[in-house]
Amino acid sequence: MSAIPESAKVGEHVVIERNVKIGENVVIGHQTTILEGTIIGDNVTIGCNCVLGIKPSVNQRMRKIQENSKELHILSGARIGHLVSIYAGSAIRENVFIGDHASIRENVSIGEESIIGRAAVVELNTNIGKNCTIQTNAYVTGDTTLEDNVFIGPCVSMSNDKYMGAEPYSLKGPYIKTGAKIGNNASLLPSITIGTNTIIGAGSVVTKSTGDNIVVAGNPANRLKK
Amino acid sequence: MSAIPESAKVGEHVVIERNVKIGENVVIGHQTTILEGTIIGDNVTIGCNCVLGIKPSVNQRMRKIQENSKELHILSGARIGHLVSIYAGSAIRENVFIGDHASIRENVSIGEESIIGRAAVVELNTNIGKNCTIQTNAYVTGDTTLEDNVFIGPCVSMSNDKYMGAEPYSLKGPYIKTGAKIGNNASLLPSITIGTNTIIGAGSVVTKSTGDNIVVAGNPANRLKK
Amino acid sequence: MSAIPESAKVGEHVVIERNVKIGENVVIGHQTTILEGTIIGDNVTIGCNCVLGIKPSVNQRMRKIQENSKELHILSGARIGHLVSIYAGSAIRENVFIGDHASIRENVSIGEESIIGRAAVVELNTNIGKNCTIQTNAYVTGDTTLEDNVFIGPCVSMSNDKYMGAEPYSLKGPYIKTGAKIGNNASLLPSITIGTNTIIGAGSVVTKSTGDNIVVAGNPANRLKK
Repeated sequence: MSAIPESAKVGEHVVIERNVKIGENVVIGHQTTILEGTIIGDNVTIGCNCVLGIKPSVNQRMRKIQENSKELHILSGARIGHLVSIYAGSAIRENVFIGDHASIRENVSIGEESIIGRAAVVELNTNIGKNCTIQTNAYVTGDTTLEDNVFIGPCVSMSNDKYMGAEPYSLKGPYIKTGAKIGNNASLLPSITIGTNTIIGAGSVVTKSTGDNIVVAGNPANRLKK
Repeated sequence: MSAIPESAKVGEHVVIERNVKIGENVVIGHQTTILEGTIIGDNVTIGCNCVLGIKPSVNQRMRKIQENSKELHILSGARIGHLVSIYAGSAIRENVFIGDHASIRENVSIGEESIIGRAAVVELNTNIGKNCTIQTNAYVTGDTTLEDNVFIGPCVSMSNDKYMGAEPYSLKGPYIKTGAKIGNNASLLPSITIGTNTIIGAGSVVTKSTGDNIVVAGNPANRLKK
Repeated sequence: MSAIPESAKVGEHVVIERNVKIGENVVIGHQTTILEGTIIGDNVTIGCNCVLGIKPSVNQRMRKIQENSKELHILSGARIGHLVSIYAGSAIRENVFIGDHASIRENVSIGEESIIGRAAVVELNTNIGKNCTIQTNAYVTGDTTLEDNVFIGPCVSMSNDKYMGAEPYSLKGPYIKTGAKIGNNASLLPSITIGTNTIIGAGSVVTKSTGDNIVVAGNPANRLKK
């Protein structure tokens, strides 16, 4: 068991493993597990039935894990919902909001004030900027970059594997530039770039990179004339 | 701790906060948390590792919460699965079924006998009628109405925000009339109406309101001639 | 409480009901519940806050359950993530990997070495072969068959109900042959066959069966000439 400040409000049946650091005025909900090596800043709120600080695990058919002993950092003012899972080796920065049932993998950085929606998933090696909004059920694949102020609508899907496991291939997700907005249930293919302030219509299937400041829609997606 | 009737069957490591009312013949699974102010009717069954009666929470970039002290009402005969989250201020009516991993927000009403599928999400301020079926992974956005006997297929997506956070805008989800059926993975845009008994094909992207008793499909969706 | 071998490593607040069989060198995470009649092989790893061995439950509008007393079998070397739900009457075979937040229903078989992604759902009466990869958020509907070496991309959607509950109909999901690859967020309609080694493009809506060794894309999906 780790040292818990008197200012912390800890629920029932909470498990806090060793080498966990907890800041001032932290709230931890019932039935939540904080695994070894997690660092929690001041004024962080965590819901019930979460699992935080998970060490990566694979079977023999999956991408090898880089051995490391990185911590999960949850910075001050972040709010974590209920039934959330977050891996070791990631940084949840100041005042980030993470919705219930969300899942965040290892080697992820989520910038200040960003919102990760309910049941959204962020895969490994992904960098999300400041003031981004990832809505409910959205899927941010691995090896992806979102610059600042990006909006990802509900149920958006991405891929980082052009050959779907068929051949050796460097995995690369989309690169989404500042202020871009992706409509609900759009599909983004691997390694494309979405331009600055570009808008992708709902349900679009975006197969190639787009310019800046345009509107794109359809399957396959094309630029709309306006 | 609240008063628990002798007829209740309560699992291990259950947390029941104060001011919770529990009816007769209620079953509560292991590791479940019932938060303050929840009202559970007779013959309700609740699975394991649920969190019920959650108070809304936001960060400073999100829609303000109306301060209230509303309860979560789970009415008689409702069945709640495992790993489910439900917010305070909602009503789960008689004999509703809620699948595992589902999430229901605040100010939601779910009508008698309706089914909310596994991992489905129902956002805030939404009204779902009687005998509706919301299938697995479907996303019912906020500020949405479903009349009675509506069928929402698996992985259906909706949006309530026409400008994707870009400007002040009154959020409004779809209005779906009695007996309409939405095929799997269809996308519905904000503020459209789906007509009575109208069928939306799987994978359609519905950008404008539809008439009654028709079949609509495609991206963008158009009426099928028959 | 069931007999637990000395070689097992069991977390805090774990619930193990009666008639559970646990092999050698099993790891069970904190707050996990193992329900009655579950059989766990050697070297199985289970995460935190899981619910395993769930008995099916319905309301009166849902498909009747076949009464049985089948067990959940988790075979040797399988790795189960965190916040996972798995039903009684299914078999998770040797060295299968199941991601966090995933849900597996009853009467499901998952073949050796297969991977079930994070938050993926596999519905009832479904058979998944060996060395399959079901990626994050994918939805495998009920009454579905995947042969060996199938790849299902992230957020893929399937349906098994042609009439969306409107009339008596034999439910039947897709039949996906060996080596087929389904791109992210594609939609598969009920009872279609996807041919051996056939590739379905991201975001496609597949309304009819396909041949072997071809590439199919679009809404509705058609064969690409190459």
